[in-house]
Amino acid sequence: MNEIYGQSKYGENFSQWFEWIIREAEIYDYGRYPVKGMGIWMPYGFQIRRNVIEIIRNLLNETGHEEVLFPILIPEILFRRESEHVRGFEGEVLWVTRGGNEELDVKLVLRPTSETAISYMESFWIKSYKQLPKKYYQVVSVFRYETKMTKPMIRVREITTFKEAHTVHENFEDSERQVLEAIDIYSKFFDELGIPYIISRRPQWDKFAGALYTIAFDTVFPDGRAIQIGTVHNLGQTFTSVFDVKIQKRDETIDYAWQTSYGISERVIASIIAIHSDDIGLILPSNVAPYTVVIIPIPHQDEKIYQSIINYCNDIHNILKVNNIRSLIDERLDVKPAEKYRECELKGVPIRIEIGFKEVSQNTVTLFRRDLRKRFTINKDELISVIKNVLEEYNKNLKEKAWSWLKSKIKLFSTLDEALNHIKEEGGVALLPWCGHEACVYKVLERLEGVAALGEPLNMSTIISIDKPSNRDVYCAFCGKTAKTMMAIAKRY
Amino acid sequence: MNEIYGQSKYGENFSQWFEWIIREAEIYDYGRYPVKGMGIWMPYGFQIRRNVIEIIRNLLNETGHEEVLFPILIPEILFRRESEHVRGFEGEVLWVTRGGNEELDVKLVLRPTSETAISYMESFWIKSYKQLPKKYYQVVSVFRYETKMTKPMIRVREITTFKEAHTVHENFEDSERQVLEAIDIYSKFFDELGIPYIISRRPQWDKFAGALYTIAFDTVFPDGRAIQIGTVHNLGQTFTSVFDVKIQKRDETIDYAWQTSYGISERVIASIIAIHSDDIGLILPSNVAPYTVVIIPIPHQDEKIYQSIINYCNDIHNILKVNNIRSLIDERLDVKPAEKYRECELKGVPIRIEIGFKEVSQNTVTLFRRDLRKRFTINKDELISVIKNVLEEYNKNLKEKAWSWLKSKIKLFSTLDEALNHIKEEGGVALLPWCGHEACVYKVLERLEGVAALGEPLNMSTIISIDKPSNRDVYCAFCGKTAKTMMAIAKRY
Repeated sequence: MNEIYGQSKYGENFSQWFEWIIREAEIYDYGRYPVKGMGIWMPYGFQIRRNVIEIIRNLLNETGHEEVLFPILIPEILFRRESEHVRGFEGEVLWVTRGGNEELDVKLVLRPTSETAISYMESFWIKSYKQLPKKYYQVVSVFRYETKMTKPMIRVREITTFKEAHTVHENFEDSERQVLEAIDIYSKFFDELGIPYIISRRPQWDKFAGALYTIAFDTVFPDGRAIQIGTVHNLGQTFTSVFDVKIQKRDETIDYAWQTSYGISERVIASIIAIHSDDIGLILPSNVAPYTVVIIPIPHQDEKIYQSIINYCNDIHNILKVNNIRSLIDERLDVKPAEKYRECELKGVPIRIEIGFKEVSQNTVTLFRRDLRKRFTINKDELISVIKNVLEEYNKNLKEKAWSWLKSKIKLFSTLDEALNHIKEEGGVALLPWCGHEACVYKVLERLEGVAALGEPLNMSTIISIDKPSNRDVYCAFCGKTAKTMMAIAKRY
Repeated sequence: MNEIYGQSKYGENFSQWFEWIIREAEIYDYGRYPVKGMGIWMPYGFQIRRNVIEIIRNLLNETGHEEVLFPILIPEILFRRESEHVRGFEGEVLWVTRGGNEELDVKLVLRPTSETAISYMESFWIKSYKQLPKKYYQVVSVFRYETKMTKPMIRVREITTFKEAHTVHENFEDSERQVLEAIDIYSKFFDELGIPYIISRRPQWDKFAGALYTIAFDTVFPDGRAIQIGTVHNLGQTFTSVFDVKIQKRDETIDYAWQTSYGISERVIASIIAIHSDDIGLILPSNVAPYTVVIIPIPHQDEKIYQSIINYCNDIHNILKVNNIRSLIDERLDVKPAEKYRECELKGVPIRIEIGFKEVSQNTVTLFRRDLRKRFTINKDELISVIKNVLEEYNKNLKEKAWSWLKSKIKLFSTLDEALNHIKEEGGVALLPWCGHEACVYKVLERLEGVAALGEPLNMSTIISIDKPSNRDVYCAFCGKTAKTMMAIAKRY
């Protein structure tokens, strides 16, 4: 273990700690590939990534989303068709201008997001309300030419794991229902990963370019900064009118269809790492850990006894396999058990099993639980029931700790100065009474650097145990008028 | 069904038939997306693609390959470092030259393949023979700026499903063993899909740019043209010496490592479609069909009876599910059974189940087998055993038919003129006695348009029932000297 980061992952060293853990745990190689803002998913990280994708894939498939795959390149002519969208993305797209030794007649954009490409094709595919709702999704790379400081998995130029959904509906009401379904899907997704979140409606100046409005999921990182980890947009008829996605409606009239879109990037993987880990290394939720259980045979001088230990390990391995628990026997002879233990803890293996002569002769199994770092011995015949219980408690514990952490970082203030002071000193999210008009927030925040408005939190009762200010006699922290709700502000990634 | 293609999929209309089937069966939308050579994987096609990827993924994982993910972009400076490789790809790469409104200082290539990027990173990762063999793979998009006529899935500018493996070894012997392992993996992969193949060693002028040599898998399409569906390269020390991938060897000396690479694109999916289908539509091997079984309830005027039919279908659906057989009940009320049957056949569903009042009252199940287009009725309690048998026979039948087809398209000739005539008239692959020197083939073929040398077939005994010419008194069809082996020539995609 690297002693520099040994004291605490919190505070000033978080950034360094994060770079250390993704390198040491062999998740993501960053900073050595010679293109700024692009990294490599290493085998162990790739398995985590794959497990995360499978969870969202199942949630989307269960709710009638169909997976598709669009080209990476969007021709300039499609990209430029919706003017607000172009203004939003133009400054940060990568352009393909040459093929072989020729200049291209039509320049191509590496997709920053896919609304334009998908809407264009929907104009061929969708003609009638009978086909609706239509829900597509894809898991792809998208590209942003970030000019700000890049950060592995958090602010990159190739977002390699963008899970973007695009839906089409007959009318506004259906699109609103879809926004709610998307919020529900993402809530379940983050719940399965134990990641706590604030859901808020972004101010208009911070919505997705082309959307009617944007709902965002934010969490708070160990350094106290808020980070956007998912967004849901009601796109209205912005893209369908520009790309001519017209449908025959139930009442036989013809009109433009309505759309929503929503996406989640690899920031969700960064969040798993940042939120659940400790100074020793990762602590992975069992549903994303490449191996839920790693079995370590303890060497023995007597060749025959060692063979019985190995057989015993194989037996356990098979029992776990039959019960669909991902496990691995670490049989390497040139690595000492203590070193294997360290590796398991570094890589966040939920349960480690240690098998030596004692376990074999007493028909027991010694387990080590990663989150509590506790070792205990059970009878072999209890193995599956104990492991199932332990995993349930383990995941529950990760989630509860994470939610307590988030709640501890959300504080209510009555004046902006107090809030700003607190954010400056302690980070986190400050809630302020608010009149409900975005203009007054904008006027105040535009002259402040480094503090952003997340919006009105929609899951208020989950994140803080207070009533909405509308029930009490309080005033907007931005303009002094009567407060009706809350505005969340924070330092943001 | 489109009558134009109703007579036969073979012959002149194959190209049109292929475009028809991928559109009608909702596999791949091609020709409407406004970038040449790029198409969209539609939901049904995406599922086929996913199942195909899972098969190769399992084969690679089982043999110690680790999945990774590299950036899509390669900086010019890496791309240009190996001169033979650059010459091979320079004319057909897409260049990113602008980010936002700035010209990029370092131009970036959309990867045509990944040897340069991976070798560069391996120089950081691999230091000792103890880490070897190392086998990486990724499933990604690669890009070729094709100036020839493009064809959906077959010749595209974005190859969306490139499964490329990259391995590192201590010495030449180990890299040779790896080539054999790769050939074995790919043979198993094509066997699982029932795709027949010729394995041959490509002539030097047609090897991968930078490789010592290339082994290729080819099959023959219904129009008689050969198509390359997989390649395996021994890269020697070409890239390790340029990118400085040095290792400490067993004998403590330091030397450049040895590499191989191998890849398969979505042409394998095109092959499944082209080779197994018939005039009515797709015939999918059961391991890649999105649904192995589709259950169709036959409507009944009596509401109560219809409900008992639906219940009976649900029961069958559950039995199939418990037995891990992918199935779907097609309950749509606005589509007639005949239309559903047609759709099942168009989309290549291996087994269709039809349940009406008769089946419910007699406790039977009526099945329809797609390849033979035969309907038969069984007792419900035999369901799983019958389906398992049928699927085994079904897959065997597809594979055998496909191999017979390939064998019927491979013919032995003793003179080049006969061979060329045959290829011109009938297509297919012509085998010619050959002295073993590539130069004499090159001299003859370079002045002939549209015929290419596939190389010396390595699975000769599988593809044709003759002995090698070395056992007989025959002469090279290219130079007249004594023949030692065979050269395969064909019109190629």
